[in-house]
Amino acid sequence: MKSNNAYELYVQKMRKIADVRNSISVLNWDKEVNLPAKGNNARSRQVATLAGIAHEMSIDRELGNLLNTLHKGNNLDKRQSRNIELSYEDYQKSTKYSTNFVIRLSETTSEAYHAWMKARQENDFSFFKESLAKLVEIKREEAQLLGYEAHPYDALMDIFEPGANVADTDVLFKDVREQLVDFVRRIREKPQIDDSFMRKFYAKDKQWELGLKMLRNMGYDFEAGRQDISEHPFTTNFAATDVRVTTRIDENDFGNMAWSCIHEGGHALYEQGLPEDQYGLPLGSFLSLGIHESQSRLWENNVGRALPYWKANYKHLQETFPDNLSDVNLMDFYKAINRVNPSFIRTESDELHYHFHILIRYEIEKGLIEGSLEASDLREIWNDKYKEYLGVDVPDDKHGVLQDIHWSHGSFGYFPTYSMGSFYAAQFHKHAQKDMPDLLQKTEQGDHADLLAWLREKVHQHGRFYTADELCKQITGEKLNFRYFMEYAEEKYSGIYGL
Amino acid sequence: MKSNNAYELYVQKMRKIADVRNSISVLNWDKEVNLPAKGNNARSRQVATLAGIAHEMSIDRELGNLLNTLHKGNNLDKRQSRNIELSYEDYQKSTKYSTNFVIRLSETTSEAYHAWMKARQENDFSFFKESLAKLVEIKREEAQLLGYEAHPYDALMDIFEPGANVADTDVLFKDVREQLVDFVRRIREKPQIDDSFMRKFYAKDKQWELGLKMLRNMGYDFEAGRQDISEHPFTTNFAATDVRVTTRIDENDFGNMAWSCIHEGGHALYEQGLPEDQYGLPLGSFLSLGIHESQSRLWENNVGRALPYWKANYKHLQETFPDNLSDVNLMDFYKAINRVNPSFIRTESDELHYHFHILIRYEIEKGLIEGSLEASDLREIWNDKYKEYLGVDVPDDKHGVLQDIHWSHGSFGYFPTYSMGSFYAAQFHKHAQKDMPDLLQKTEQGDHADLLAWLREKVHQHGRFYTADELCKQITGEKLNFRYFMEYAEEKYSGIYGL
Repeated sequence: MKSNNAYELYVQKMRKIADVRNSISVLNWDKEVNLPAKGNNARSRQVATLAGIAHEMSIDRELGNLLNTLHKGNNLDKRQSRNIELSYEDYQKSTKYSTNFVIRLSETTSEAYHAWMKARQENDFSFFKESLAKLVEIKREEAQLLGYEAHPYDALMDIFEPGANVADTDVLFKDVREQLVDFVRRIREKPQIDDSFMRKFYAKDKQWELGLKMLRNMGYDFEAGRQDISEHPFTTNFAATDVRVTTRIDENDFGNMAWSCIHEGGHALYEQGLPEDQYGLPLGSFLSLGIHESQSRLWENNVGRALPYWKANYKHLQETFPDNLSDVNLMDFYKAINRVNPSFIRTESDELHYHFHILIRYEIEKGLIEGSLEASDLREIWNDKYKEYLGVDVPDDKHGVLQDIHWSHGSFGYFPTYSMGSFYAAQFHKHAQKDMPDLLQKTEQGDHADLLAWLREKVHQHGRFYTADELCKQITGEKLNFRYFMEYAEEKYSGIYGL
Repeated sequence: MKSNNAYELYVQKMRKIADVRNSISVLNWDKEVNLPAKGNNARSRQVATLAGIAHEMSIDRELGNLLNTLHKGNNLDKRQSRNIELSYEDYQKSTKYSTNFVIRLSETTSEAYHAWMKARQENDFSFFKESLAKLVEIKREEAQLLGYEAHPYDALMDIFEPGANVADTDVLFKDVREQLVDFVRRIREKPQIDDSFMRKFYAKDKQWELGLKMLRNMGYDFEAGRQDISEHPFTTNFAATDVRVTTRIDENDFGNMAWSCIHEGGHALYEQGLPEDQYGLPLGSFLSLGIHESQSRLWENNVGRALPYWKANYKHLQETFPDNLSDVNLMDFYKAINRVNPSFIRTESDELHYHFHILIRYEIEKGLIEGSLEASDLREIWNDKYKEYLGVDVPDDKHGVLQDIHWSHGSFGYFPTYSMGSFYAAQFHKHAQKDMPDLLQKTEQGDHADLLAWLREKVHQHGRFYTADELCKQITGEKLNFRYFMEYAEEKYSGIYGL
């Protein structure tokens, strides 16, 4: 077989796998947005069947042989070679899982999920403890099976953040501990900001219209996507030409809708910016969860919680909700949306405390996987760490160790990507300002075209062509460095809290 | 392999095929209801990929062997045996199609669809003529390939209406020609009814609420379905527990929404009434298109356009739209919604002229497939027949031979099921009244519980267990007989038009 024909055949096979995976995404989107109550069982089995088919297709021997041939060949162009290289690696990884292991993992996860649900209902970690222990056991086994150089947790982080490892991540979180903990302590000594007007009554339909306007203003293409309502906001994509976001609206908490819209919008712009001609191939896919999160956080925090954005938009917001905001000036609004206050729940955290929530999960996961911690002690460990880093006494397990769904899904290694995303965002946004000295002026005018074009050029269009390290170096001259986030935080919050 | 294990394996395989097919239905539903413009290409390829997978699964040799074994076995219960018998027949049929033929058929259809679109745009049948001729050629070939006893068109009708044939259908349409044509001529000699108030302004949101109320009142379960808006109303199902309807709302034509809701509601009640434990198996599926249409037409016409229904509901309708209806009394409203008037377009027809539209298509299809008519002459044939049966001069091809999508899809043999549906509906509704002498009183009180229970028991619960002939004989003592429809029409319209 000629390499060109082989490459075409590879593309066809990959696209069919993508078709099935994207169909699953449609089914899942529909489940969150539309599903009638009684339709749940049928939907679960339909998703499971398609998932099985996609898995079989992705470990198909013909595909393996094709990748072997192409991987050795040399008449492909740079982008084609990179696709093959990545697919080859992906294929090698997926064939490390024996059918027996996949079944055991799926059963253990399913059991853990139900135990977690039960434990949440009872507000008692004890109901989750044993299942979690089993799950940790099999995740340790998975780490061995995947292989690693320095630390077993590296193997699990790599699933979500290719190339990430304990050595680098320890450095990041050491900085968080040494720099951010102290900084936040100083903030907490200052008088607290009043944000009570954020929880007045904000009518649903007006919030909805405003959310659509925010998305449009960012450059989200409504001809290649749509927004709907779901219980938990999320972004999903079935192709770069069909990227959908959801939001939720709480009539007594304006910030809920506003920052979920802009956050999901950031994710969606990344997906809409992926190269359409690479559909189904690695170069048509997002790079890593950390980079994905960098896009959502950059829009949510570095743009959406910054003063220039609200210089452009606050007047309209006041006019939309005059009863709530006509006597609140821009600076007081700006301070309120950046109020720093420790909370028990990660998803309700301000952008500084957020990283303590992640730090705690990182330390726990690393400990569980390396065997220095055991699942049975997790409630105590959790509560101690919350006291240490956030200074709060966790009242119960629902507000503590049972709050996240991730572990019940077996997703160990996922949490660190949330912090990496914020740190990448700060680093990228700093360099966007260097590359475009008038960026903040543009933002003040409500014009985000340059920023989006910059992100398209620097990040979106590349898909998985570069590693996260390479991409970061290319954009900023160095790899991920916590310094940027710390400088961003110091500058912003010193102003807000008068440090 | 023991038969019980073999049967279980058969069930598993069938359900996986159903999962894939139902996933396609989700993708198609989403396409009609939600799809952003640019998502169309990706969606088409996703549907095509899943369709290919479902087809491969349905002609899988292992399934064939299993069916062979089970078909010969004898330790299955009655319902299991019937499932096997039907699946065996379905399998035999699908293996008659060679891969080469399937590809040619799909290419020819795709070409014909694009030619039809072009021809509609240009309002000129000439653009469709050649593709249609090719399509007819391959459909003739398909009839040979499937096999038939008496007439090649039998083989094509059988795809949509198992057991239907030219001999029986000729009898039905002979009756239509001899009895209905004359009856409608007598109606047309009477003074026409005023229905202008039906096309006053009916606000969208009020229509929407009303449609939901009508569905709820019929017994449609909103926990196992939902209604949305689409360009063309349709019903689709992903399981008996997730059956969705769509409607359209024209603010200047109240009837459009009202009867599309109740029509689709009738289809949906059938699907919601199929036995859930037979998911993916023949007994969990609707019997035929004719029987499906009998359910929609029974609700739409025999219930929804009859006086008892509006005795229950007209007051609320008047209160909802007082500007339009407060000075229209019940009898005038009832007459208006049953106005008989010839039209060019099938889907806009009254319930009597409707069958002339179908009769014409039936005569044409039969002629094309047996070779007594040629595609190239279709415009003239069409226009002549419309003059003959409806007394109208077709103004152009859009209002004539190009109006339906069916032929461009290669669906020959589909149209007759529309008339059969109405005829079955009249026959079933007559016997429902015999079985429940107070049925019309219940309808007058807005109570449809007995009717729905009767349909559930007589039709829905059986899936494909009986043939249409058997089912009809079981319910009414005889097979499909046009007499019931004619009697229904004579009684109703003699009153309305004072014959």
